[in-house]
Amino acid sequence: MKETGRWTQLWLAYDSRRDMGNGVYFAQVFFDGFDIMDHRIQNAWAELAEGLERMLGISPVNSKEAPADGGFIVRRQEGIKAEGYGIIQEDGILTLSAADENGVLYGVFHILRQIALEEPLEGVHITCHPDNPLRMLNHWDNMDGSIERGYSGRSFFFENGEILVDERTRDYARFAASVGINGVVLNNVNVKDQATWLITDRYFDKVSEIARIFEGYGIRLFLSLNYAAPLELGGPDSADPLDKAVISWWKEKFTEVFARIPNLGGFLVKADSEGRPGPFTYGRTQADGANMLADLVKPYGGIIIWRCFVYNCTQDWRDRKTDRARAGYDNFIKMDGDYHDNVILQIKNGPMDFQIREAVSPLLGGLMRTNQMLEVQAAQEYTGQQIDLCYLIPLFKEVLDFKTYCKPELDTVADVVSGRTFGNKLCGMAAVSNTGNDANWTGNDLAAANFYGFGRLAFSTSLTAEEIASEWVGMTYSNDETVKQTIVRLLMGSRETYEKYTSPLGIGWMVTPNTHYGPSVDGYEYSRWGTYHRADHLGLGVDRTDTGTGYVRQYHEPNASRYNSVEKCPEELLLFFHHLPYTYRLKSGKTLIQHIYDSHFEGVREVEEMIRVWESLKGKIPEDSYALVRERFERQLYNAREWRDQVNSYFYRKSGIADEKNREIF
Amino acid sequence: MKETGRWTQLWLAYDSRRDMGNGVYFAQVFFDGFDIMDHRIQNAWAELAEGLERMLGISPVNSKEAPADGGFIVRRQEGIKAEGYGIIQEDGILTLSAADENGVLYGVFHILRQIALEEPLEGVHITCHPDNPLRMLNHWDNMDGSIERGYSGRSFFFENGEILVDERTRDYARFAASVGINGVVLNNVNVKDQATWLITDRYFDKVSEIARIFEGYGIRLFLSLNYAAPLELGGPDSADPLDKAVISWWKEKFTEVFARIPNLGGFLVKADSEGRPGPFTYGRTQADGANMLADLVKPYGGIIIWRCFVYNCTQDWRDRKTDRARAGYDNFIKMDGDYHDNVILQIKNGPMDFQIREAVSPLLGGLMRTNQMLEVQAAQEYTGQQIDLCYLIPLFKEVLDFKTYCKPELDTVADVVSGRTFGNKLCGMAAVSNTGNDANWTGNDLAAANFYGFGRLAFSTSLTAEEIASEWVGMTYSNDETVKQTIVRLLMGSRETYEKYTSPLGIGWMVTPNTHYGPSVDGYEYSRWGTYHRADHLGLGVDRTDTGTGYVRQYHEPNASRYNSVEKCPEELLLFFHHLPYTYRLKSGKTLIQHIYDSHFEGVREVEEMIRVWESLKGKIPEDSYALVRERFERQLYNAREWRDQVNSYFYRKSGIADEKNREIF
Repeated sequence: MKETGRWTQLWLAYDSRRDMGNGVYFAQVFFDGFDIMDHRIQNAWAELAEGLERMLGISPVNSKEAPADGGFIVRRQEGIKAEGYGIIQEDGILTLSAADENGVLYGVFHILRQIALEEPLEGVHITCHPDNPLRMLNHWDNMDGSIERGYSGRSFFFENGEILVDERTRDYARFAASVGINGVVLNNVNVKDQATWLITDRYFDKVSEIARIFEGYGIRLFLSLNYAAPLELGGPDSADPLDKAVISWWKEKFTEVFARIPNLGGFLVKADSEGRPGPFTYGRTQADGANMLADLVKPYGGIIIWRCFVYNCTQDWRDRKTDRARAGYDNFIKMDGDYHDNVILQIKNGPMDFQIREAVSPLLGGLMRTNQMLEVQAAQEYTGQQIDLCYLIPLFKEVLDFKTYCKPELDTVADVVSGRTFGNKLCGMAAVSNTGNDANWTGNDLAAANFYGFGRLAFSTSLTAEEIASEWVGMTYSNDETVKQTIVRLLMGSRETYEKYTSPLGIGWMVTPNTHYGPSVDGYEYSRWGTYHRADHLGLGVDRTDTGTGYVRQYHEPNASRYNSVEKCPEELLLFFHHLPYTYRLKSGKTLIQHIYDSHFEGVREVEEMIRVWESLKGKIPEDSYALVRERFERQLYNAREWRDQVNSYFYRKSGIADEKNREIF
Repeated sequence: MKETGRWTQLWLAYDSRRDMGNGVYFAQVFFDGFDIMDHRIQNAWAELAEGLERMLGISPVNSKEAPADGGFIVRRQEGIKAEGYGIIQEDGILTLSAADENGVLYGVFHILRQIALEEPLEGVHITCHPDNPLRMLNHWDNMDGSIERGYSGRSFFFENGEILVDERTRDYARFAASVGINGVVLNNVNVKDQATWLITDRYFDKVSEIARIFEGYGIRLFLSLNYAAPLELGGPDSADPLDKAVISWWKEKFTEVFARIPNLGGFLVKADSEGRPGPFTYGRTQADGANMLADLVKPYGGIIIWRCFVYNCTQDWRDRKTDRARAGYDNFIKMDGDYHDNVILQIKNGPMDFQIREAVSPLLGGLMRTNQMLEVQAAQEYTGQQIDLCYLIPLFKEVLDFKTYCKPELDTVADVVSGRTFGNKLCGMAAVSNTGNDANWTGNDLAAANFYGFGRLAFSTSLTAEEIASEWVGMTYSNDETVKQTIVRLLMGSRETYEKYTSPLGIGWMVTPNTHYGPSVDGYEYSRWGTYHRADHLGLGVDRTDTGTGYVRQYHEPNASRYNSVEKCPEELLLFFHHLPYTYRLKSGKTLIQHIYDSHFEGVREVEEMIRVWESLKGKIPEDSYALVRERFERQLYNAREWRDQVNSYFYRKSGIADEKNREIF
């Protein structure tokens, strides 16, 4: 990967490529119906020019007239869906049609991708538009420069309470736009310290500078809002959403904010969660809080994205009735239909917190009269922290493909969050970003596949995880089939491998408290976080059935019955829904305890195998990337062994049941 | 307790007292053989004047001639042991004799104590001298103002990289001197960041100012030294103790240091421990490192106190042969006799780390030709963090009274560290200080008893814990018998109560990693720290016998055999030395598991009882102190219940053995 200055260009490195007959179209490039002075069109042109120059060694020429034979036409064409595009090659002419400038940007990146992948443009005839209206990245960057759950260095947006704007800001926007991202939340949802001041004069200049850069790449800027801002910024001594003084303070504040940052998209709010203030503090509902803000930003075209991560984080571990998994649904379902139309509820993929395996949140499709957005986490908080390889697109796909049964058809999560199910206009997907100021942006070079993949998947939810992986490898490393197949194979197996050596069968957690890397089987067992495995000398698992916490009832049928039944429950989620004895027989014929032992030994063996596979790439990919990833694999192997030995020892010491294969357990 | 400015005066509050015929002596005070301009004599006089004024409402008068009838004579008398004093009252005259100024200070504080305790001086005839040559407090204060393992606010010595010198410095010295402390280490043994620069011109002025204040109260100032200082302060690129360039750098450094701080006592060094650099880095012995520094400070009367807390802190939990408990002995015993005579090895009371119960370190009395000093911890790192009440003097006493069998007689730890056993001149006791800048100095008002008690015990090792407690209550609160008995009873029972609800029978740990407050039974079980309980479904405990790790062999006989035998081993240390089944019968007839259940239920009941007892004091002691301690007890009760329920649930879930009394276990 080429480095520009001190950072790489990821999948936009534009290394030299075979032409495949693609260069021929760009001797004459004609813009038809688009203002070539528009910021986005200029960026599209600049990207095209650089890509062609670097990949094919040719310079495109802007023509004042439509080329008669042989050329590239970018044409405005009404009727194409918003942000969509068509690409047609016929009669020596390549035509990109779009109804708006975002469509042009995405179409150009599509063409560049085909060139990078050495696919001929000849005879191309496609139309494409994004499945999700909103495709967002949420940054958990703090203004001191740290990143909550960041594993790729420090923030490239903030340092020491100041906002950074430089070439890196632009490169980030290019990468995001190239995979179809159209919204970015700049700052951590846990809004603390100086970040509360982002909506004041102290920071307006720099924020609007970033907003303008983003706008040039079709990205709307959003900010995370401190719900208690009135109290902290010298407003009324309250944040009660029904208090007139509070409303009028916010009204004035938004007038000021949108005057200074007119292209601001709106705000993301985490309220009443993990110690953050919210409407509950004032005896109001979540809808009261969200609607008040939404009404006030509506005149400016703003939206309020309201997180549903609301649960009791001071639970008593002795209490087996309270179930954190229930909390999101319980807190939000009652008000379904009460949210105003520029409010979106943002719902994490699972009801717990981004574990390697958990059930899909029953709020998705449970809400039927509310804008909803799926939140996934590209940052590998619980999934290896960009040390361990964990390609997350298969996980995201599983969630999107999940049938909610909220309607007879068009009922998958992908249908729901894209608006196909209920006709919402404001909806989509958001990922917690895995980027930082490391030279390679994502800590582990291979973790960039999650950045790339999230964008591609949010744009086209029907792409397979494998297709996305293959694209990413081709653009990032090489179109050599051996290289491509090797890395795709590594990526595709990585999530299951990670699952094997960590917590079994959907139970989750068992992770070192606070850091969330490495094993601690009881680390969260006696805590206040609602995250328990309930293991004793006879068995483990959380009983979320009808006769347990009742969580299963939050699903539509037949999901509810399926999860409720130990026989019908998908085995990978068995311990998420059921408390079972170690001697329970799985479909494989193995006992539960033997499955735990076997899968943990397997997981480590698979990491060893991954290392051997990676080593086969030596000399075939750039040495620095080879070495960096090789070193991460070494740490992954150490981590996997710790997990294997701690989990196996824990359950052996607790159950007293020996491994049938008599392997080393401590 | 009276507050001066923003902090209390602890046991020197000098509230009004009944006279008991004591005031009469001070109408004429005559100094015979002491220079009244000496700093220590001036301080003794000031203390006497303030104490008499405040307690008895009288002003002592300095007389130029010996009083004939009725008066107080302070007389220099050779032959009295260093720092000792005699007090005789006969023929209307009260005489304080001492050979040195420290003796005068201590004698004056003795007299003030008797007045505060409302004990008549009439007929008094005592001589007294400190049992330990060195009686030190070690502060783990960092230069940023934080205190490692501090539970009483921030440092009153440092803030933001600067040294603080104010009235609080003086008050601290007064308190320390009043209980006989004669040495203070100012900064954390983990010398980091700016603290390395304490031995440079950047800080000399302030350090010497503190040294002068301390000197006025008979206290020598010590600093913790960064063994790697040459590398960090621009000296040679090495800290090899045999490297000539290194030696000559240190030589020059000490010339500079002692020129600027001539009364500096020397240095405390933590080397080759928990990531700190040391001689091992250069293939040298601990003796090489300590002796090199000692030789260089010797011309200035300086000493080197070298900590023995050296162990492998990256142990593999799977490894059952390596035993952290062995490390101190294994690392230091071979070089017994090699340390130069101004080196003192400072040895923690137990071989692990300040647990509520552990065996006495076999290095104490194991070393027979080396100056040694006992280190205890007044800061309640593992013993309740000054939230939970834990009067530690009974624990310190146990250690002092421990028979090492290193000689046929005079073989207790108290004998060894006082120099009685082997005739050492440099030896004694050090405590990690529990003070901070909280108004009450020690977080919990009652934790001041550990500050007071450590000093008194280090001075007079034959005092009982109860005598010390009684003195402290009388001076701090009241001589009312009900108050005194009530608080003494609370203090005296507190350590056993704490032990009951935390880790059982000497096994230790089971504590939340890093913070060290609250339970986490497996928190250190799979860690690198060498701190394991090895519980499985059948039993728990660490086998340190002959056939286990062999640790028992580090003791002289008959201790070795006693600990090696499960029948003879003191039961409170049973799991420290033996791995035993849950069904093992204790002398009480109870099984081990039933003992765990019972003691944990008992512990919580005792805390509830402590609260009732404390509540009986309402109205009898100052309301602010009553309320502050009451609130701490509330937190202690919460903590005790967490410990009870987590420990009981953990062992019930693991063993599957029910509580005989069928109480609630989760």
